[in-house]
Amino acid sequence: MAEYSLDFAFLSIEEANRLLRRREISPVELVDAALARIEKLNAPVNAFITVTADLARKQARKAEKEIRSSGPRSPLHGIPISLKDNIYTRGIRTTAGSKILRNFVPREDSDIAAKLAAAGAILIGKTNLHEFAYGITSENPHFGPVHNPWALDRISGGSSGGSAAAVACGMGFASIGTDTGGSSRVPPALCGIVGLKPTFDLISLKGVVPLVTSLDHGGVLARNVRDACIVLEAIAEKYPRGVARLNHRNLGKARRRKIRLGWPRHFYFDHVDEEVRAAIDTAMKTYRSWGAEIKTVPLPHLAEAVAPSTDIALAEATYYHRAQGYFPKRAADYGADVRGRLEAGANVAAVNYLAGFDVKRALTADFEDAFKQVDVIVAPASPVPAPRIGQDEIEAGGKKDTVRSFLVGMCRPANYTGLPAMSVPCGFTSAGLPVGLQLIGPRWGEAKLLALAAAYEDATLWHDRHPNLR
Amino acid sequence: MAEYSLDFAFLSIEEANRLLRRREISPVELVDAALARIEKLNAPVNAFITVTADLARKQARKAEKEIRSSGPRSPLHGIPISLKDNIYTRGIRTTAGSKILRNFVPREDSDIAAKLAAAGAILIGKTNLHEFAYGITSENPHFGPVHNPWALDRISGGSSGGSAAAVACGMGFASIGTDTGGSSRVPPALCGIVGLKPTFDLISLKGVVPLVTSLDHGGVLARNVRDACIVLEAIAEKYPRGVARLNHRNLGKARRRKIRLGWPRHFYFDHVDEEVRAAIDTAMKTYRSWGAEIKTVPLPHLAEAVAPSTDIALAEATYYHRAQGYFPKRAADYGADVRGRLEAGANVAAVNYLAGFDVKRALTADFEDAFKQVDVIVAPASPVPAPRIGQDEIEAGGKKDTVRSFLVGMCRPANYTGLPAMSVPCGFTSAGLPVGLQLIGPRWGEAKLLALAAAYEDATLWHDRHPNLR
Repeated sequence: MAEYSLDFAFLSIEEANRLLRRREISPVELVDAALARIEKLNAPVNAFITVTADLARKQARKAEKEIRSSGPRSPLHGIPISLKDNIYTRGIRTTAGSKILRNFVPREDSDIAAKLAAAGAILIGKTNLHEFAYGITSENPHFGPVHNPWALDRISGGSSGGSAAAVACGMGFASIGTDTGGSSRVPPALCGIVGLKPTFDLISLKGVVPLVTSLDHGGVLARNVRDACIVLEAIAEKYPRGVARLNHRNLGKARRRKIRLGWPRHFYFDHVDEEVRAAIDTAMKTYRSWGAEIKTVPLPHLAEAVAPSTDIALAEATYYHRAQGYFPKRAADYGADVRGRLEAGANVAAVNYLAGFDVKRALTADFEDAFKQVDVIVAPASPVPAPRIGQDEIEAGGKKDTVRSFLVGMCRPANYTGLPAMSVPCGFTSAGLPVGLQLIGPRWGEAKLLALAAAYEDATLWHDRHPNLR
Repeated sequence: MAEYSLDFAFLSIEEANRLLRRREISPVELVDAALARIEKLNAPVNAFITVTADLARKQARKAEKEIRSSGPRSPLHGIPISLKDNIYTRGIRTTAGSKILRNFVPREDSDIAAKLAAAGAILIGKTNLHEFAYGITSENPHFGPVHNPWALDRISGGSSGGSAAAVACGMGFASIGTDTGGSSRVPPALCGIVGLKPTFDLISLKGVVPLVTSLDHGGVLARNVRDACIVLEAIAEKYPRGVARLNHRNLGKARRRKIRLGWPRHFYFDHVDEEVRAAIDTAMKTYRSWGAEIKTVPLPHLAEAVAPSTDIALAEATYYHRAQGYFPKRAADYGADVRGRLEAGANVAAVNYLAGFDVKRALTADFEDAFKQVDVIVAPASPVPAPRIGQDEIEAGGKKDTVRSFLVGMCRPANYTGLPAMSVPCGFTSAGLPVGLQLIGPRWGEAKLLALAAAYEDATLWHDRHPNLR
């Protein structure tokens, strides 16, 4: 039975949906398989803050009846999924990984939770995260760190670290995260799964604990590109008129020729771990082997974007915690790192905050210019593989810097500009740590982005490898 | 001829338009009358930075021909009007009252200038103002102070001080100003004319030197309510659907009964000059004599609105001057008061700036609640009559404070909330200084606001008194 459950736990959503349609499996079996994985692996990995086992079983029995009588009503019907614990779930506590909200039970569902419920997805639990999503490591002082399933002494990345670890371990088919500076791309990159941060506002954040209103996005974490597409279809808001609609069934049909990839001239590329760079280079060769054209695109404002986007992040985060009455009133209840950032946010000058939106406009124009020449822009999702838990600094590509600076550096531009971006597994280091290829697309360009990612995925086997945890 | 010109200079726009339609006068005569007033009075009053006499005469001859052949194409056709010198005029220098832009000649018209030109209005000149519109006195260190036409040793108010003095003196029929904290209501109140600051965004500020983007409004200064309405009709953007359209011809038809006036419980009313208070009380009695109902309305967030709205103003103003490269680079080129405010703006914390928008929302909700019960809210436009030039502090109603605090206090709430507001002449102090009644209306409620102001104006003679300058 154990091996059988394991297989169920790593099905793709499309495969599971096909089996459900044929009544060859039941949602109850899918939930049992996920819960069995959680029971075995959550202790070492610490991916969940709350496991909603009883609720999930109840929802599974209901879905089983519904599917038996009239088939699955969506590709997610009967599929167990987790939510990052900063996403409101009615009647289920939503801690945001904080001491301050440790006992907070929302009276309303977030838009995300409501849309998943409408699609018939089953909630298996709420995942661990960096405190208030305000960090990139998921070393949570209140609920413990999330451990990387590929090396338990290493971080899973953050802030959606529990979501990434859960999906990598087969504890649910997918997870919904958030992404303010890489939080739904860095953990997937470090944990060897797919992460997708769509265009700003495509996922409603109503009922999500905010971090930085101007930079916050929803995110989808899944084991392959089609699964990510299916989940996004279920939770996305409406596209503006005239935009190509998402359809996971079309992903396999992406033309492989005449793809134009952009390689950014200015993307802090001087400081990338050698093995990460080698994996990215190999991925580029895969694209090139189909005749893809690779152009260097200038993004002249990228280098100067770090400071102003950081000012916006610091100021808006502190503003929110102040407005809620959490900070500085309950300063002692925060972890030291988050408290330090909240303190720094109080010192950002309004004129610098405002200037940040000028650089945002300039950088967005840079990307728009680039997308006149290329379909997607490529970069590492993280310039380094998963650092160790407790590690503060890291050296890579001849540069020593904080873990935070390294992990956020490649991802924040897509938050600043609101452009869709994703991380796709593209290899492993010699120590067996996953590497993620980041693809950044034009505004509302998820359909094209996912198609080019699926083409790559179909040509490689990286997404078929799962951490060997027992 | 001089007396004859004087009469022309003080016609209402409706009267002038009627005479133009009947070919009883020509735009050339209207322009000559205005220019004669300027020639005689601009030296003592200092209302204009640039007088466009040749251009005005040329435009007048063209308008004369057009009107002779097919009548006036709008109520403003052939009517001489001035523009505050922070409003771009193509080919005519636009100094914003500053040393920094002393020789700046825009290559494009502002939307305001373009709309006036399309209506056939004639530009007679660019009016003096507080440097960069960043002050309430129009004591301009580069172009000299604007003198109040009712008492030359007193200020005209600011920042549209030149516009108000010009209109009061018959140097043009109307003027377009801007209003960030009372700049198109305080000068009219102190100079005995009508000032109207419509709803935020109703007048496009494209091509206007910004002061505080979140609080900047256009403004209309005229000698009576109908004139103000005619000018606003010409320069307003489109109203949202379903909003009653402006029509100056309907203003006389306002029902006088069942008017509900709101008297704000919290409007810094403790500190108002006694003679100003008496004039406002008399105005209320006039309304009451028609059976108007006067209700006290609570605006609970008004008292706490001063600091956060000031933070927004300080921060956005400094941000603009920094982004333009004017400040601190050319700090020595500013007057001491503006330089001081720009320095203060650099110290506003982003978290306080952001919090300012929370208070803005709360105060706007207060006003919305009040407008469920009343048609307009009344207040003084200025709690004191015109202070002396050079005066820093003032005492009124038992309180000593800066001239700036007194003059801005009653006006800024309508900038903060974006609500339409106007000042209408309502009396004189024993020293012969004008007093203005402020009326604040609901969002997009200019039609009602102007109708109630016109009803008051029709019942009084204050607007018929002109300063006795020769």
